[in-house]
Amino acid sequence: MSARLADLHAALGGVLHGTQERRVTRIAPLAEADEESLAFVAHPRYRAALAHSRAGVVIVPPDCVADALARPHPPAVGWTAWACDDPYLTFARLTQWWRRHVQPRPRHAGVHPSAWVAPGAQVHPDATIGPFAVIEDGAVVEAGAEIGAHSVVEARARVGAHARLAAHVVLGFDCALGARSIVHGGTIIGADGFGFAPYDLPGAHGKAWEKIEQLGAVRIGADVEIGANCCIDRGALGDTVLEDGVKLDNLIQIGHNVRVGRHTAMAGCVGVAGSARIGAHCTLGGGAIVLGHLELADHVHISAASVVMRSITQPGHYSGIFPIDDNRSWEKNAATLRQLHALRERLKALERRHQP
Amino acid sequence: MSARLADLHAALGGVLHGTQERRVTRIAPLAEADEESLAFVAHPRYRAALAHSRAGVVIVPPDCVADALARPHPPAVGWTAWACDDPYLTFARLTQWWRRHVQPRPRHAGVHPSAWVAPGAQVHPDATIGPFAVIEDGAVVEAGAEIGAHSVVEARARVGAHARLAAHVVLGFDCALGARSIVHGGTIIGADGFGFAPYDLPGAHGKAWEKIEQLGAVRIGADVEIGANCCIDRGALGDTVLEDGVKLDNLIQIGHNVRVGRHTAMAGCVGVAGSARIGAHCTLGGGAIVLGHLELADHVHISAASVVMRSITQPGHYSGIFPIDDNRSWEKNAATLRQLHALRERLKALERRHQP
Amino acid sequence: MSARLADLHAALGGVLHGTQERRVTRIAPLAEADEESLAFVAHPRYRAALAHSRAGVVIVPPDCVADALARPHPPAVGWTAWACDDPYLTFARLTQWWRRHVQPRPRHAGVHPSAWVAPGAQVHPDATIGPFAVIEDGAVVEAGAEIGAHSVVEARARVGAHARLAAHVVLGFDCALGARSIVHGGTIIGADGFGFAPYDLPGAHGKAWEKIEQLGAVRIGADVEIGANCCIDRGALGDTVLEDGVKLDNLIQIGHNVRVGRHTAMAGCVGVAGSARIGAHCTLGGGAIVLGHLELADHVHISAASVVMRSITQPGHYSGIFPIDDNRSWEKNAATLRQLHALRERLKALERRHQP
Repeated sequence: MSARLADLHAALGGVLHGTQERRVTRIAPLAEADEESLAFVAHPRYRAALAHSRAGVVIVPPDCVADALARPHPPAVGWTAWACDDPYLTFARLTQWWRRHVQPRPRHAGVHPSAWVAPGAQVHPDATIGPFAVIEDGAVVEAGAEIGAHSVVEARARVGAHARLAAHVVLGFDCALGARSIVHGGTIIGADGFGFAPYDLPGAHGKAWEKIEQLGAVRIGADVEIGANCCIDRGALGDTVLEDGVKLDNLIQIGHNVRVGRHTAMAGCVGVAGSARIGAHCTLGGGAIVLGHLELADHVHISAASVVMRSITQPGHYSGIFPIDDNRSWEKNAATLRQLHALRERLKALERRHQP
Repeated sequence: MSARLADLHAALGGVLHGTQERRVTRIAPLAEADEESLAFVAHPRYRAALAHSRAGVVIVPPDCVADALARPHPPAVGWTAWACDDPYLTFARLTQWWRRHVQPRPRHAGVHPSAWVAPGAQVHPDATIGPFAVIEDGAVVEAGAEIGAHSVVEARARVGAHARLAAHVVLGFDCALGARSIVHGGTIIGADGFGFAPYDLPGAHGKAWEKIEQLGAVRIGADVEIGANCCIDRGALGDTVLEDGVKLDNLIQIGHNVRVGRHTAMAGCVGVAGSARIGAHCTLGGGAIVLGHLELADHVHISAASVVMRSITQPGHYSGIFPIDDNRSWEKNAATLRQLHALRERLKALERRHQP
Repeated sequence: MSARLADLHAALGGVLHGTQERRVTRIAPLAEADEESLAFVAHPRYRAALAHSRAGVVIVPPDCVADALARPHPPAVGWTAWACDDPYLTFARLTQWWRRHVQPRPRHAGVHPSAWVAPGAQVHPDATIGPFAVIEDGAVVEAGAEIGAHSVVEARARVGAHARLAAHVVLGFDCALGARSIVHGGTIIGADGFGFAPYDLPGAHGKAWEKIEQLGAVRIGADVEIGANCCIDRGALGDTVLEDGVKLDNLIQIGHNVRVGRHTAMAGCVGVAGSARIGAHCTLGGGAIVLGHLELADHVHISAASVVMRSITQPGHYSGIFPIDDNRSWEKNAATLRQLHALRERLKALERRHQP
């Protein structure tokens, strides 16, 4: 596996300084890179780490070119500095080029003989369908789409052009996935939302739950990525919606009738309860919880493991995390926390007695 | 897709006021309903929203009938008010009727030719088995049960009458699912519980873990619903038990030997550690954690994301959530929280010096 | 199902006191055991519970032998006390013996006729491949390994000798699982890590996300156990690594490029964000979150539901949990918590005015 630097440069642009005729055998973190590696420096503030790197080629911001070239003990072929305005973005696009040309993802061709495609399904001749995949009646798989092993596209569901389901994905009946979107393994799209009406159970000392059938579906936009083992529930009456460009990590729960705005990203283990509306360009840290029926404005950023208990109407950064401490200190502080309101009252009483 | 109002009414009861001869094309939220829609008002306190709704038919509590009929600008056919004692319950049952008669769930018939049914399995002639499903030796699938695509009913497991496994469910060996219960996609019932005995590892500076084989199973009652991508572990010696009517949302972890009482409901992302016993008619909010070996009485309600660290013997509502705040305020308060016990001591000292 | 006590004893060692010729029909908790059951007492401090147990055979620490034999109302055959230095460890090994000899896990033999094994895959003749399993080109399944129903071993992945994938597991391309490791149902190993470079989207008021292809893999050591519905992401450039003897419960998220040290154990619903490095012999309680790029030393123990926000360089026990309380008390304390920093300032002001 290797690539000519000239080909990388032709594909991605920027300005090359130093040795231009060389091959790159891997992309590596700065500290682990060797002379056949390509690495990157995202920002001039990481300049110090550059001095010790053995990376043959370094993607750098323009004002780090000199640092990259001046590194001591150059290899025989010399150093290369590749100047770009946004090295991290160039690195991202480079990984895509690398995945396409140097280290391609294994992919089945055509419709695997073991797959089961219903007579009433429409599968584009360009699409690929993996082993034991199921495409049900009325489902549509568009051009260039890729359905992984054991994935199920249920009745009347639609997979957009060049979208990809990894292995073991379920796209539920009537649900739609937009063009170029990616869904990782084990994710279930279109399970029933969690809706029940409580009623008095004769003879019991409490309520039982009557199921509310979930009559909506899930609509997912283009360029969305959803991680592994997520759940995106179908709506109760209307649809659950993920807008274009949304990115979800693994093990995320999206309740029924939630709407997530464009280009919002959520880290792993987030839970969003039913009917919440999350704006565009938001980020939710890992393990955050958003309660049901709340609204988050655009550009709201929630720290990991924080619980959103009220709507947030202003952009900004919000947190609610109990600070971790050694267990003994935590025990004392947590115990005191249960008296906090009382402590405030005692403080108030002292203040009243000692007004200046 | 549409239904005659008369048919809905015949199935569900209550008293119709206003136009009785009409068709309903969809069930919709009050604010989005049009004249061919049916909506509902769960309680008189939502009466104000009714005035602006264009819903042709509204299920209402009896004392909202007049409001429903008096809405301005009625369509040519007029308004209909459908009076019921519990509109939300009638709505729930209406969605079930709608699912059966108007918008049926796609369903395979009989045993799909691609499924693998072991010679020693018993599948009732009425049951349906989806593509690539696996029914192992000694498994029993009762009348009317539905096994989704790729689902696995392992050896000697039993699926009760009219129960339904969606796609990609595993019901582990020796486990049982009661009548009419529903399990959504990707849920794993009967994986090994997490049990290990620590022992000194020769040559290491610490313990290693010896596996405790999990010799029990999982017993799930009737009318239970389990969401997508949940895990219900088999017991270590005895069984893990979900009693009748339990409702679990998605991505829920139920550890080995847990017992969950009748009609208890848990929202998404809850984790219940091993050997916890949860009473009947409890609710656990999303992301709540219950530690192992604890007991919760009947009628205990836990807020989202709260951590149950001790047994709860009294019915009631319990919470433990760090309040979310703008990040700057949170940082200051969280830092101070780490000194809380010391602050209490300082307050005490001040009080001692200033006793009246 | 039963076993001769003599066979158990021959396999596991220790010293038998009392009746030696008997059969054991089940292993049971002390309180539920009958005269045909074998139970255990892990530590002399549980001695009191022993007095009331009807367990025919009890594994005990040596100084509890007399208690076990002196129990009143012995059955005709008498009591047996089985003395071991570490009864809990003996119990663990006993469950393994029981699983092998008395209550074997159902297992497919050879390659199931419905499985799809690519021509370029290497499957050892001793390995077993379940129904509808997929073994892709270049994959290797070593001697004695067991691939469950519907599991997928992607291209060039390797399953070590005597390792076991339960049903519905995905081992992604180029990933490796060590000898004797176990992966439970629904777990996805080798999905893409969550990596994106933000960039200004023309015409939008905010950033969009450019995918960083994940070019690394996952390497899992020997004797690892991973629960159900977990996600272990592939690395961005290097690999994600679980060292030998790591034990993960269910629904755990391990981000890209994480390294988990030997014999570390994590309870259910834990999330570890990308590039975190966790030492050896650590434990993480259920629902704990570790933020990205942090380091935890060896022998660090994190309480359930705690959030690790900074690196921890010293062994020890750390916690950060908001204490649960009745909802009314919680509301008052949580509201006051949002003023905590201000309260501290007020306390300081009072102290300044009242210096002795």
